[in-house]
Amino acid sequence: MTSDNPNPDNHVKRDLRDRIHEVIFGAHTPSGLTFDILLLVAIVLSVVAVSLETVGAISERWHDQLVLVKWFFTVLFTIEYGLRLYCVRRPLNYALSFWGVIDLLAILPDYFLLLLGFSKLPVNMNANTFSVIRSLRLLRVFRILNLSWFQNEAEDLKNAVWRARGKIIVFLMVVMIIVTVSGTIMFEIEKAFAPLVRNTEGEFQIDPTTKRLASESQFDSIPDGIYWAIVTMTTVGFGDIVPVTFGGKIISAVLILVGYSLIIVPTGFVSAEVIESKRLKTAKTVSTKSCPFCICEGHDDDAAFCKYCGEHL
Amino acid sequence: MTSDNPNPDNHVKRDLRDRIHEVIFGAHTPSGLTFDILLLVAIVLSVVAVSLETVGAISERWHDQLVLVKWFFTVLFTIEYGLRLYCVRRPLNYALSFWGVIDLLAILPDYFLLLLGFSKLPVNMNANTFSVIRSLRLLRVFRILNLSWFQNEAEDLKNAVWRARGKIIVFLMVVMIIVTVSGTIMFEIEKAFAPLVRNTEGEFQIDPTTKRLASESQFDSIPDGIYWAIVTMTTVGFGDIVPVTFGGKIISAVLILVGYSLIIVPTGFVSAEVIESKRLKTAKTVSTKSCPFCICEGHDDDAAFCKYCGEHL
Amino acid sequence: MTSDNPNPDNHVKRDLRDRIHEVIFGAHTPSGLTFDILLLVAIVLSVVAVSLETVGAISERWHDQLVLVKWFFTVLFTIEYGLRLYCVRRPLNYALSFWGVIDLLAILPDYFLLLLGFSKLPVNMNANTFSVIRSLRLLRVFRILNLSWFQNEAEDLKNAVWRARGKIIVFLMVVMIIVTVSGTIMFEIEKAFAPLVRNTEGEFQIDPTTKRLASESQFDSIPDGIYWAIVTMTTVGFGDIVPVTFGGKIISAVLILVGYSLIIVPTGFVSAEVIESKRLKTAKTVSTKSCPFCICEGHDDDAAFCKYCGEHL
Amino acid sequence: MTSDNPNPDNHVKRDLRDRIHEVIFGAHTPSGLTFDILLLVAIVLSVVAVSLETVGAISERWHDQLVLVKWFFTVLFTIEYGLRLYCVRRPLNYALSFWGVIDLLAILPDYFLLLLGFSKLPVNMNANTFSVIRSLRLLRVFRILNLSWFQNEAEDLKNAVWRARGKIIVFLMVVMIIVTVSGTIMFEIEKAFAPLVRNTEGEFQIDPTTKRLASESQFDSIPDGIYWAIVTMTTVGFGDIVPVTFGGKIISAVLILVGYSLIIVPTGFVSAEVIESKRLKTAKTVSTKSCPFCICEGHDDDAAFCKYCGEHL
Repeated sequence: MTSDNPNPDNHVKRDLRDRIHEVIFGAHTPSGLTFDILLLVAIVLSVVAVSLETVGAISERWHDQLVLVKWFFTVLFTIEYGLRLYCVRRPLNYALSFWGVIDLLAILPDYFLLLLGFSKLPVNMNANTFSVIRSLRLLRVFRILNLSWFQNEAEDLKNAVWRARGKIIVFLMVVMIIVTVSGTIMFEIEKAFAPLVRNTEGEFQIDPTTKRLASESQFDSIPDGIYWAIVTMTTVGFGDIVPVTFGGKIISAVLILVGYSLIIVPTGFVSAEVIESKRLKTAKTVSTKSCPFCICEGHDDDAAFCKYCGEHL
Repeated sequence: MTSDNPNPDNHVKRDLRDRIHEVIFGAHTPSGLTFDILLLVAIVLSVVAVSLETVGAISERWHDQLVLVKWFFTVLFTIEYGLRLYCVRRPLNYALSFWGVIDLLAILPDYFLLLLGFSKLPVNMNANTFSVIRSLRLLRVFRILNLSWFQNEAEDLKNAVWRARGKIIVFLMVVMIIVTVSGTIMFEIEKAFAPLVRNTEGEFQIDPTTKRLASESQFDSIPDGIYWAIVTMTTVGFGDIVPVTFGGKIISAVLILVGYSLIIVPTGFVSAEVIESKRLKTAKTVSTKSCPFCICEGHDDDAAFCKYCGEHL
Repeated sequence: MTSDNPNPDNHVKRDLRDRIHEVIFGAHTPSGLTFDILLLVAIVLSVVAVSLETVGAISERWHDQLVLVKWFFTVLFTIEYGLRLYCVRRPLNYALSFWGVIDLLAILPDYFLLLLGFSKLPVNMNANTFSVIRSLRLLRVFRILNLSWFQNEAEDLKNAVWRARGKIIVFLMVVMIIVTVSGTIMFEIEKAFAPLVRNTEGEFQIDPTTKRLASESQFDSIPDGIYWAIVTMTTVGFGDIVPVTFGGKIISAVLILVGYSLIIVPTGFVSAEVIESKRLKTAKTVSTKSCPFCICEGHDDDAAFCKYCGEHL
Repeated sequence: MTSDNPNPDNHVKRDLRDRIHEVIFGAHTPSGLTFDILLLVAIVLSVVAVSLETVGAISERWHDQLVLVKWFFTVLFTIEYGLRLYCVRRPLNYALSFWGVIDLLAILPDYFLLLLGFSKLPVNMNANTFSVIRSLRLLRVFRILNLSWFQNEAEDLKNAVWRARGKIIVFLMVVMIIVTVSGTIMFEIEKAFAPLVRNTEGEFQIDPTTKRLASESQFDSIPDGIYWAIVTMTTVGFGDIVPVTFGGKIISAVLILVGYSLIIVPTGFVSAEVIESKRLKTAKTVSTKSCPFCICEGHDDDAAFCKYCGEHL
């Protein structure tokens, strides 16, 4: 990412190419930071444009404008990609790097579709199918985060999650087991207790007791049950699949309480890690000096004399 | 907010105007506090009246009474606004301040609509359209919070959120990226896998396998997908948009688990900030001893000698 | 709650009445604890019986058995109530106490309905309408919690919530304001943008673009909006009311993120309080002794000698 | 679990049986760990195969392959079960242990169904009905967790939950009471206020005011109400049962806020326990010094003299 010029004769060759490199890749300089922010704004706008194109009402009314905006950004990003290839010392290295591939994939589909025409695309697909890749460019925000006062905050966040990773992995394993077992239980329970509701013509019957549509099991398969268990135990609770039998509801209530009790655990761990990291930071700025006379430690950073024997530190 | 009378001759002019000012603006005096509480009650009641007016059954039955109540409060707030303008030393300053604008906007629409008549309003609009502004007056509760024993608590809350602001901003950025990428992915996945369900007449078809209504993708656009991702990852989970395809459900389950793991992080940070603020407070109350020689403070509880000058404490 | 017999001649009068009193009211004795646990089991069973009676399928099949069980518990609780009145020294005091009223109300409706007959009840009401009162007797579990090893845990829970009460009140006020303002905003936004969907016959129209049922605003009134805001911001998210317009969804997504960020705050406070209470407990068991020679404090509970000067404590 | 051979003559008998035992039961050796991991992979794959068999579209298309895969794993697990019985010293002990029963139950149903034929099964049941037992074998993951670097993490998780168990029990009791009382209240409120909506033919009526389907109470019974209360207060919020009356919505909003405030409490407790356990660990690593005279440990970092015997450290 940084220009490699250890020998002095390279300093003389500080030409346009190096300048461009500094602006595009050197996020630590003011011009580099400005470029990164502008680029991020362009990426956000292009994502917004592609997003709006999928909204029926908007794409009908402003179709031409949206296409224009999209191509404006495609050309812009093409120029950017070209400049990156031009100014970097080892173009292939960049082209094969994570960012290089993302940058290329973000512009390629548009040209590809222009050449081929849209008629050759399978149904359910169009130019926006590759919009996912374009939205991945949003990850460039992390480059800016690395620079400014966000660095510490982002670092703290990353560290807390990282130190808690072991517990999170163990936790996810436990969750996966519980989710699989309870999803399977719910599938079986609901299948066993749900009333048969369709008559021979495949029509829905009215339950004679409740005068409502007789309910059938909404758990079509075990994967469905596992999906339900995940949605439920994380307290998302879409409600697209719900237990309809008495037995299913009881099991479900127990599972929710168990799952809920379990799923709050990692919150505690992340909290603990953050607090620990704070304590360590504080501890570091405190306990470095030790008294040369009584060898006591634990003095404050601003202490000039030992607090136990009164000698000069 | 407080009356500016540093020179003694102003003390003589303590007339009605200053008295009113003290009651209306001086929340630190008993009469001022009483006024603020009564005003808050009036605001709450007026908001309740406007709210009830929008309930079909209630507005039909008690329409006249509700209109009466609403006008009672409108006149009351008009008098209050007038008094504020009268008693304040720089009326324009108040009128252009945040509270001045809110206070005016809360009463203006009613008179405006009375003059114009309701016939000129566009459909879907009526006198209550501006009720949002009236409900903003509820923010006056913060004036009372500033005064009483709530102050410390409100301060703590504000500080904890404020100190965690950096992390919250970084976190929201990460969430926005994840939400955009996963919303786009879900839109594409559901579009690609959802069965074609309407026949040529545009009618819904019955899926021959499940004997249910064949499902179509509920993700109409990328913004829809982003809205779904936000609703899902915050564990709100309305269920108005849900994945209907097998692939979509798998991706969705992964996204929920990832999103859930991520979204619990800020909880830890706020916890950590609150605990840190408690620790700092305790630390402060520990440092009561001051050195009799150099008058320095901030010594530890177990310090026997001043850490700055080395004298015995 | 405890028998008042300070003077010795009362000890002689230790008759049946005192014995019963000890068993029924004295939860600190083994027999009293046994009675309380048995009573709790009876209450739980009676609540289960009343609950099952409301389940259509079960009440049809086991109607007679359930009535029998219900009357068994009603007679049992009547005897218990009589014994309480008999053995307590000031029956009126008990009868007018919280528990006395609850105990009476739990049995009264059954006799009341037996005398009057069920025909005189208004529609939508029956003997079970008062089952809420019976379920309130479950609160007796707290008497048992007061006794055993649960005491410390219950105490901790109560203290943590109690010390965080100030912050919780401030927080609930802030939430009420946000919820009112955002509920009002959502009601207005949805009303303004939702398409008119019913034709002149009051039938639902099909949206020509999406080929789905055209959506209308689901926010019928401002109280509806506030209910939605509460359900959403606590991440419950029933999905019975959801935004259907583009604008409404955007506002809604912002509200969810704001509300979510806010609603996690009290979690941090309760965490902090619990940790603080733990720290205080530890601190208490540590810092009582002070060295008689160097007056140092902060010694451990098991310290026999001063850790600073080595003298005997 | 480990081979018992304390006397030297057993070392000579290290035959095939002991080798197998070491591989199958001795998870501490490399070969044992490899076996456990391979077994876990086989269990996961068999669970996936059984799960996929319940998915309509997949079981129709790849029915034969899935049956083949299922029988492959059944035979594999039969061999494994046989080897376990063969190599273990007390086969009956293993066969009657938790794992022995699970291992047998995971393979038995398949053979059972093969012998009997599927025609004799009651409707709603098939070979997969016992898939729950098979998924229970996933619990073997905990054997692997016991071995590797996960041990500490899993230990921490277990300890934090274990130390918080008292509070969690008290908390669940409180939740059960609140849930029962509020479920009963909601059932009664909704029943009392919900409009009568079906005409004499049992058809649904259109509410003349709102032009929508008139709503009836969705709370069919008190258990239904309790199920709703659990789903709501844990913020899962399926939305399959929601209040439809004005009164019900108000009560519901209050219950949500109360329940939400309550349900966040245990999060704080788990956080506190984790932090406490971290503190204890740190405290332990602090106490490295031991008194040269009385060999006591547990001194603070700043201790100059032994706190038990008063000698200089």
